[in-house]
Amino acid sequence: MSVGKSGRASVAVLGEHEIIEIIRRRLELMPDSPVSFGDDVSAVGLGGKRLAVLKTDMLVGKTDVPSGMSLWQAARKSIVMNVSDFASKGVSPVAVLVALGLPRDLTRQDIEQIADGLNAGAREYGAYVVGGDTNEASDLVVSVSLFGSTEQGKLMLRSGACPGDVLAVTGSFGKSAAGLRLLLDERCSAPNELREGLLQAVYMPKARLPEGLALGQCGAVSASIDSSDGLAWSLHEIARMSNVGFALDRVPMAEEVFRFAELNGFDALDLALYGGEEYELVVTVKANLCAKAAAAVEAVGGCLLPIGKVTGERGIFFHVGGEKRLIEARGWEHFKSEV
Amino acid sequence: MSVGKSGRASVAVLGEHEIIEIIRRRLELMPDSPVSFGDDVSAVGLGGKRLAVLKTDMLVGKTDVPSGMSLWQAARKSIVMNVSDFASKGVSPVAVLVALGLPRDLTRQDIEQIADGLNAGAREYGAYVVGGDTNEASDLVVSVSLFGSTEQGKLMLRSGACPGDVLAVTGSFGKSAAGLRLLLDERCSAPNELREGLLQAVYMPKARLPEGLALGQCGAVSASIDSSDGLAWSLHEIARMSNVGFALDRVPMAEEVFRFAELNGFDALDLALYGGEEYELVVTVKANLCAKAAAAVEAVGGCLLPIGKVTGERGIFFHVGGEKRLIEARGWEHFKSEV
Repeated sequence: MSVGKSGRASVAVLGEHEIIEIIRRRLELMPDSPVSFGDDVSAVGLGGKRLAVLKTDMLVGKTDVPSGMSLWQAARKSIVMNVSDFASKGVSPVAVLVALGLPRDLTRQDIEQIADGLNAGAREYGAYVVGGDTNEASDLVVSVSLFGSTEQGKLMLRSGACPGDVLAVTGSFGKSAAGLRLLLDERCSAPNELREGLLQAVYMPKARLPEGLALGQCGAVSASIDSSDGLAWSLHEIARMSNVGFALDRVPMAEEVFRFAELNGFDALDLALYGGEEYELVVTVKANLCAKAAAAVEAVGGCLLPIGKVTGERGIFFHVGGEKRLIEARGWEHFKSEV
Repeated sequence: MSVGKSGRASVAVLGEHEIIEIIRRRLELMPDSPVSFGDDVSAVGLGGKRLAVLKTDMLVGKTDVPSGMSLWQAARKSIVMNVSDFASKGVSPVAVLVALGLPRDLTRQDIEQIADGLNAGAREYGAYVVGGDTNEASDLVVSVSLFGSTEQGKLMLRSGACPGDVLAVTGSFGKSAAGLRLLLDERCSAPNELREGLLQAVYMPKARLPEGLALGQCGAVSASIDSSDGLAWSLHEIARMSNVGFALDRVPMAEEVFRFAELNGFDALDLALYGGEEYELVVTVKANLCAKAAAAVEAVGGCLLPIGKVTGERGIFFHVGGEKRLIEARGWEHFKSEV
């Protein structure tokens, strides 16, 4: 057990989710907040029905930037992971602020790469970097904040899923988890063309913003989250905040994940469920509006794959080949996770 | 000269202001932005005359938290330094987001102290912490973002000072600089009661929010900035962005600064001009509205001290006892500054 400087349990044993809970309990909450504390974004009333939508998420070099990822890619990723949360709520990012912690040995060229990556990430999703702050730090730290606006009632929250709704996702799972293992575990290997595809998923993640905006517009979604902490974790979050359960009948996985898993002795389903650092949307859709939602996502070039149903009993199960497998509440978590 | 890992000049020789300039030049700027890039806050149009006002500023343990400052005080300070920028623009902070980088050896009690300090800082200025993110990092990193709103034309920018305007400040200078020297330079000393007052300025800084809101309301201010990088630096920023100069005839200093300077062989004026980590407002006021501005600040319990005039020629001079002393463009700067 890890012990802190004063002899008490350190954050290394608490884990990210417990730390957030410790902090939340000590904060005075904003009265009449339009979004529960702990959803993917925060929101503040602007008068009338308009809401300001806000998000912050920090990228830290030593935990979020695997070897081989360039500074340009790291800076872009810091924006993508924030945009993904906006996408899951159906909100366009408008303005980006960036606070940087920079190690002293970075060069002018390094700073230029970071600036270019930030600009590319923002412009890719229609936003602009409008301000920021630079500081000296031991690690590379890229702390991004997003601003956008929407109308009350249009936000897709984590908390609206109802029994009978259809569970659906915007893509397949497991490539980032496989790619991270290739980078972090020297016992793992893959032939070149497989390796490249998996590393691309790690280095150049994409936020499902067009899909999220289309889903927000079509009015068919009852709850939504992204899969940045892993599909299993996302399902448990919707379940907890909507007070429901799930029965899954499939988990979409790319063929590369099966190949990697077989070559290296992993369970492909484990990689898909408990991976994280992946930015698909995980949504529940009113059953009678499924075709409408799928058409809306296809109209922007995406796809919406039904993978199960919302149930009235708590618990999340995967039904496959007559077997019922429990999906655990674990996934990527800072402090605790050691890939 | 410090040299980076690839043999080129590192950020340690570039300095914070040059790094910001390198980044700014590589960003695509938002069209029709209501505030110039590089002012104390950013702003985005909300439709009609409303503007969303945004700010981010990061506190890093190893450079921004001197010895003896508690985690509670550090967390509170991370909010105060952001609120001070809102104060200088005449805008109320409404919502605070916080991204934390936490060293692994922090304990649960440490996290509680940080949460309490964040909450206290936000509530002190009428805002709420509405969301955030936690991460593992080598340094303590508290990256704060603020959101508020105002009306176009009400923001006090750095860029509106005109020759003939009166230069004024909301308080005296030098206590934080003296306190920091006591903490960081073991050759410095002071009797206990002097020491306590100076350290209090470092540990418990205050943002001049009531003063800033009163000045924003009264419509008398042509340009405004806070003094977080030092009075001299603030004057040079207004001068650069308004294309003016200044003739100062006084620099308000607390009696404690003179005592500390005399005891330890410093120039008190140097401490007051080039210190930083101090959060007074530095404003230019239309000459015929000075009494109105002073009355507005006094009505909220503050004071507005005239210290000089805006001039048409560039250059910032302090006229004292028949002598004319040049005020240099230097102050607190990350990477470069070694107190």
